Amino acid sequence: MQFHHHGYVSGDPRVQPAAGVGIDRPEELPNEVDVLIVGSGPAGMLTAAQLSQFPGITTRIVERRENRLEIGQADGIQARSVETFQAFGFAERITAEAYWITEMAFWRPDTENPTNIIRGGRAVDDATGISEFPHLIVNQARVLDYFAEVMANSPTRMSPDYGLEFHSMVVANDGDYPVAVTLTQVGGPNDGQERTVKAKYVVGCDGARSKVRASIGCTMAGDQANHAWGVMDVVAKTDFPDIRTKCAIQSNDGGSILLIPREGGHLFRMYVDLGVVAEDSKGAIRKTTIEQIIAKANAILTPYTLDVRNVAWHSVYEVGHRLTDRFDDVLPDSIGTTTPRVFITGDACHTHSAKAGQGMNVSMQDGFNIGWKLAHVLEGRSPESLLSTYSAERQVVAKNLIDFDKEWSTLMAKKPEEFEDPSELEDFYVRTAEFPAGFMTEYTPSMITGDATHQDLATGFTVGKRFKSAMTRRVCDTNPIHLGHHATADGRWRIYVFADAAPAGSPSGVTDLAEWLSNAPESPLAVTPEGADVDAWFDVKVIYQQPHQDVDFNAVPAVFKPDVGPFALTNYEKVYATDPKSDIFEERGLSRDGVVVVVRPDQYVANVLPLAATDELAAFFAPLLSAR
Amino acid sequence: MQFHHHGYVSGDPRVQPAAGVGIDRPEELPNEVDVLIVGSGPAGMLTAAQLSQFPGITTRIVERRENRLEIGQADGIQARSVETFQAFGFAERITAEAYWITEMAFWRPDTENPTNIIRGGRAVDDATGISEFPHLIVNQARVLDYFAEVMANSPTRMSPDYGLEFHSMVVANDGDYPVAVTLTQVGGPNDGQERTVKAKYVVGCDGARSKVRASIGCTMAGDQANHAWGVMDVVAKTDFPDIRTKCAIQSNDGGSILLIPREGGHLFRMYVDLGVVAEDSKGAIRKTTIEQIIAKANAILTPYTLDVRNVAWHSVYEVGHRLTDRFDDVLPDSIGTTTPRVFITGDACHTHSAKAGQGMNVSMQDGFNIGWKLAHVLEGRSPESLLSTYSAERQVVAKNLIDFDKEWSTLMAKKPEEFEDPSELEDFYVRTAEFPAGFMTEYTPSMITGDATHQDLATGFTVGKRFKSAMTRRVCDTNPIHLGHHATADGRWRIYVFADAAPAGSPSGVTDLAEWLSNAPESPLAVTPEGADVDAWFDVKVIYQQPHQDVDFNAVPAVFKPDVGPFALTNYEKVYATDPKSDIFEERGLSRDGVVVVVRPDQYVANVLPLAATDELAAFFAPLLSAR
Repeated sequence: MQFHHHGYVSGDPRVQPAAGVGIDRPEELPNEVDVLIVGSGPAGMLTAAQLSQFPGITTRIVERRENRLEIGQADGIQARSVETFQAFGFAERITAEAYWITEMAFWRPDTENPTNIIRGGRAVDDATGISEFPHLIVNQARVLDYFAEVMANSPTRMSPDYGLEFHSMVVANDGDYPVAVTLTQVGGPNDGQERTVKAKYVVGCDGARSKVRASIGCTMAGDQANHAWGVMDVVAKTDFPDIRTKCAIQSNDGGSILLIPREGGHLFRMYVDLGVVAEDSKGAIRKTTIEQIIAKANAILTPYTLDVRNVAWHSVYEVGHRLTDRFDDVLPDSIGTTTPRVFITGDACHTHSAKAGQGMNVSMQDGFNIGWKLAHVLEGRSPESLLSTYSAERQVVAKNLIDFDKEWSTLMAKKPEEFEDPSELEDFYVRTAEFPAGFMTEYTPSMITGDATHQDLATGFTVGKRFKSAMTRRVCDTNPIHLGHHATADGRWRIYVFADAAPAGSPSGVTDLAEWLSNAPESPLAVTPEGADVDAWFDVKVIYQQPHQDVDFNAVPAVFKPDVGPFALTNYEKVYATDPKSDIFEERGLSRDGVVVVVRPDQYVANVLPLAATDELAAFFAPLLSAR
Repeated sequence: MQFHHHGYVSGDPRVQPAAGVGIDRPEELPNEVDVLIVGSGPAGMLTAAQLSQFPGITTRIVERRENRLEIGQADGIQARSVETFQAFGFAERITAEAYWITEMAFWRPDTENPTNIIRGGRAVDDATGISEFPHLIVNQARVLDYFAEVMANSPTRMSPDYGLEFHSMVVANDGDYPVAVTLTQVGGPNDGQERTVKAKYVVGCDGARSKVRASIGCTMAGDQANHAWGVMDVVAKTDFPDIRTKCAIQSNDGGSILLIPREGGHLFRMYVDLGVVAEDSKGAIRKTTIEQIIAKANAILTPYTLDVRNVAWHSVYEVGHRLTDRFDDVLPDSIGTTTPRVFITGDACHTHSAKAGQGMNVSMQDGFNIGWKLAHVLEGRSPESLLSTYSAERQVVAKNLIDFDKEWSTLMAKKPEEFEDPSELEDFYVRTAEFPAGFMTEYTPSMITGDATHQDLATGFTVGKRFKSAMTRRVCDTNPIHLGHHATADGRWRIYVFADAAPAGSPSGVTDLAEWLSNAPESPLAVTPEGADVDAWFDVKVIYQQPHQDVDFNAVPAVFKPDVGPFALTNYEKVYATDPKSDIFEERGLSRDGVVVVVRPDQYVANVLPLAATDELAAFFAPLLSAR
C-alpha cells in the first residue's frame, strides 16, 4: 500500500482522496453517464468497483432492491476470487471471517450395514498448491459489502443507486450517449415512475432473468431441469462428526447431500437430493417444505441425526444448464465491423447448478474482464475494438463451466451402485481441482493475448492464463513480497522484466530494454499522458536473479524507479530480487537470459517475450493504444 | 470468528450486538461510572477496548483533545503488540498498511575515506523466530483508530468523550463510587466549565505530565536529559540506497542517525543526533530548526544527499529516563491491607528515549494488564486483591525497559572511535532481540502466576511469560490453526489441556480431568454463573497428540464441546490435533503424559500442571474466584 506521497495521510490509507467525478458526486442518478451497470450482484459490483478507480469516468450502478442485500444464495469463493479480492484490497479481511475449506470428506453406504453411511475417504483441498490463496465459503452479501466499501473509498466515491429497475433500452447508432435506458423507480415517493438515462455503455448484471439480455436479443440454450434439490442454511445439533467439513454424502437409497459448512462456526448449508422430477410434476417439487427437506436429510444421514434448531434460509431448485449465444449486442455477422455498446455478465449469461460453487466466481471474472476494457476505451487509451474481446473471451469460459458443472452434478446425483469405483466422485474432485479453483481459464490469442512463440522462456507463466504469483524480495526494504500481490486492481498493464544474470546497471539486456522503455518513441510508455506519473498506465518492475544484498539500488535503470506525485519522489517498490527460500526463476521456469512477461490489468498473462524483443513488444501494444 | 449461533448475522460479524450498557448508551458522560479512563493514548484506548467487551460495566474514556488524534509521535510496533492486536481482531489490517521491518542496516565511517559512510553490516529482524508476528512501523494515530473501532463494535458501543481535561481528584474511603474526578470542558459552548464524575476506579493514561499521577502523589525519579535529538517525519529525494530500510548510521564526526522507514512507501523518520547539551543551554537546543536538522542529516549521510520535499512533523527532544515509584494509589506501607482505586499507565509511569521503539508497546501492555483485572473485580468474578497485582507486575517491566533503553541510547550516542568493536551496536541489537520484540516480560509468582514446579512438563510455555502460540489442526474442519490466535481479548481464562497418548474418549488422564472439570464442585468452571454459557468464564480446549484424522470427535469429553447460545449448539472449535508439519508437543516441549497450561486473559502463562493435579488447579483458582 503506497501513500503519503501526495502529502501526509492521517486516516485510513484505504480511503483514496476524492477526485474527478467523485468531487461533489451527485446523490441522484444523472441523466447521462459513461457506464450504466444494471444489477448489484457480484458481477455488477466488481465491474463498478473496477470502474470506480477512474476519476474521469461516470459510472452508476442501479439495483431494483431498495437496500443492501441481506442474504444471498451464493457462498462458494474459489481461490481465484480470493486472488481477485487481494487486488481489490480486502482478501485478508474476508478470509478472516470466512469458512476455510482445507479438506473434503466423502461418505458412502457402509457395505457391511448399507442403511448406514460411513466416511469413505478424504481429499485435501488444493493438494498440489495451485494457489497460495484459500478456498472459502462466505455469503455473497458480505462479498457485495466489501466491493461497496472499495467503491465508497475510491476517488469517485461511488455507491449503488438502489430502487431502480431496468425496464427497457434503445441503442442508437450515433451520438455521444447512444444507449437510452428506461428505469422504473421501486419504492419511495416516486414508486412506479419511469425515467430515462443515457449511457455510452451498458453492462447487464441483472441475473438469470436478465431484461438487458432480452433487450439485445440473446438466446439462452441448454437442457431443462430434471433433478431437484432442497437447499437450506441452518444451525443444528447433530452427532454427524463431519458437520464442519465439506462433505459429499451418498446414502444407500440413492439420496445424497452436499454439505457446505458456513462462516461463523455453526451455520451450514445442505443441498439435499429430492430425486428425479417427472416433467408433469414440477410444480409439486417446488412445494417441498423445510420439514420435508430436514426429514430427507435425516434419512440420508442415518445412523446420525440432525436436530435443526434455526433456519436462516431455504429453497428448492432444479438443475438447469443454460448458456447465452453471445455476451454483447453485436450480432455474429457484424463482428469485426461493429463494436459493442451493451454487455451482459454472470447469471445473465450462464446458469447451472450451485453445487460446484462456481457461479459467483465466474460472474466476478466476467466483471473483472469487462471493467478495465471499458475504462481504457472511455479514457481514450484504447480503441473501441478492445471491447469485442469481452464476449469472445468470456463465452468460452462459460461454456467450459457448463460442461464441468454438468459432469459434477451428474456425478453427485448418481446412485452408489452406478459408480464403477466407490471413489469415482472423490477422484473426479481431486483430478479436476484446478477448474473449480478458478485457474483453468486460458484465453486464446487475440489483440490482448499473444501466442506461445516464446513460452519456453517462462514455462510457469502460461500465456492466456492468470499470472501465478511467486515470492520475491523487494530490494529497498528487504521485505519478502508475493510479486503478484503488489498488483492491485488499478487498471494498469504490468510489464515484469525478469533480468538476465548481469548485475544491476552493467551492460546487459535489461539495461538496453530499460533504456528503450524510457526513451524510445515506440515504447508503450511513450503514450503516457503529459502530467501523469510515468507509471500511470504501465507498471514496469524488474526482478533480478541476485539476492537483495547484491542488488545496487542506485545502479538500477531509471524506468524501474520512476519519480511520482507532486514531490517527484522515487517509487521504490518496483525493484525485486530473488527470495533465498524460493527462487522465482526456478519456481516459474524463467530463462536465465531474462524474459519479459506482460500482464493484463485483470491479471492474465498477455505475452512472454525475450528481453531484446522490443519490436514485438511495441507491435503487441500498438493496436491497444489509440495514440499509436 | 464465531457467529450465527444467536441467529443469522447478515452484516459485518465484527460488529457485536449491543448489550447491557451499550443499549441506549448515553451520548453525554454520566455522573457515575464504573471506570473512568483519563487519556486516549495507546494505553488508555487498549484499556477501554478491553473493558468495552463487558456489557455490565460502564467505562468512559475522557480526552482533553477535542477530536481524534491526527498525527502521533510513536510509531514502533513490536511483535508482541501485533500479537495483542490479533487478540483484538485487527492485526491483519494494520499489518497490511504498516511498514514491515525485516532487516536493519548498520552504516559506519569508511575506514579508507572516513568522511564517507559505508554499510557495515545487516541484521535480520527476528532471525531466531521469536514470534510469528511481524515487527511493524505505523503511526500511533492509526493504532488508536483501530482500538476506537473495536470499542464502537463492542456490545457497549463505546467511544471516547473528547474535550474533557482532568483537573483534580479526591479518593474517599467508602461509598459505591469513591473516586470523585473533576474535569474541565475544553472547547465547545461550555469551554472552561468544570464538572465532577464519580467512579469506582480511575485509570490515568494521561502521559508524561500526568495529573492523575500527581494526584496520587507518585514521584518520578531518574536522570535528566543531556543528549539532544532532532526528529523529523519527511519525504525526500535521496541517493542513500537504504532509505527504505531501518538503519543506524554513524558518521565520522560523531553524529548519528536512526532511520525508521514509515508506512506507505515514501515517508521516513530520522532521529538526528544534535550532540551533548550543556546544562545551561537547554533552551537553545529546543530552538533547532527543521532546516538545521536537515543540514545535520546531510552532513552525517555524506557522500549521500537528502533533498527533503515535504515535512509531516518534526521536533527536538532530549533523552530522559524516569520511572514512577508505584503504578497505583496504595502507599508502600498499605500494600496488603488496602486495594487500589487509581492506576496509572504508560508514559505517566515511564519516560525514556523513543529510539528503541518501545514506549507505545509497553504502554499498551500496561493497559492489557489492568483491563481484565478491573473487569473481573467489577463483575464480581474476582476479589479486589487482584488489582494489587497490577502495580507489582508492571513496575518491574518498566524498570527493565528503562535499563534497556539506557543501554541502547547510550550505544546510539557513542562515537565510532569509542566502540571496542565496529559491530558492537549490531551485536547488541541481535543479542537482545527478544526484549524489544516484547517477549522478555516474565511475571514472578503471585496470586495469578504459579511457580515453576512442573515447568519441565511444558518447557516451551514458561510460567510468567506470554503463551507462545504454535500450529495445530482443528479437528472439526481440519483447518490449520495457530492455537494462540484463537484466543481473543474477551477476558476469559484459558485452560489448554494437552492430552496424554490415549485416543479421545478412552480411559485416560484427559478423560478424568474432563470429568472433574465438568462435574466436580471444586472445578473452577463450577462458579460460572447460572444462565451463562458454560465456557463464559473459562475457555477449555484440548489438543490431542494424534493427527486430526485419528480423533473421533464424538468420543471427545463434553467439557471440550460445550453447548452455547440460545439454540444450545455445539461449540466445535475447542478440539485440536497435532499439525503434521509442526507437532506442537515437539515445538513446545510438552510432556507425552499430557499437561495442563493455564493462560491469563492477557495471554501470559499462569500455571503448568500435570493432568492429574486437580487439587492444585482448584487451589490456584480458589483465591481468584470470589464465589470460592
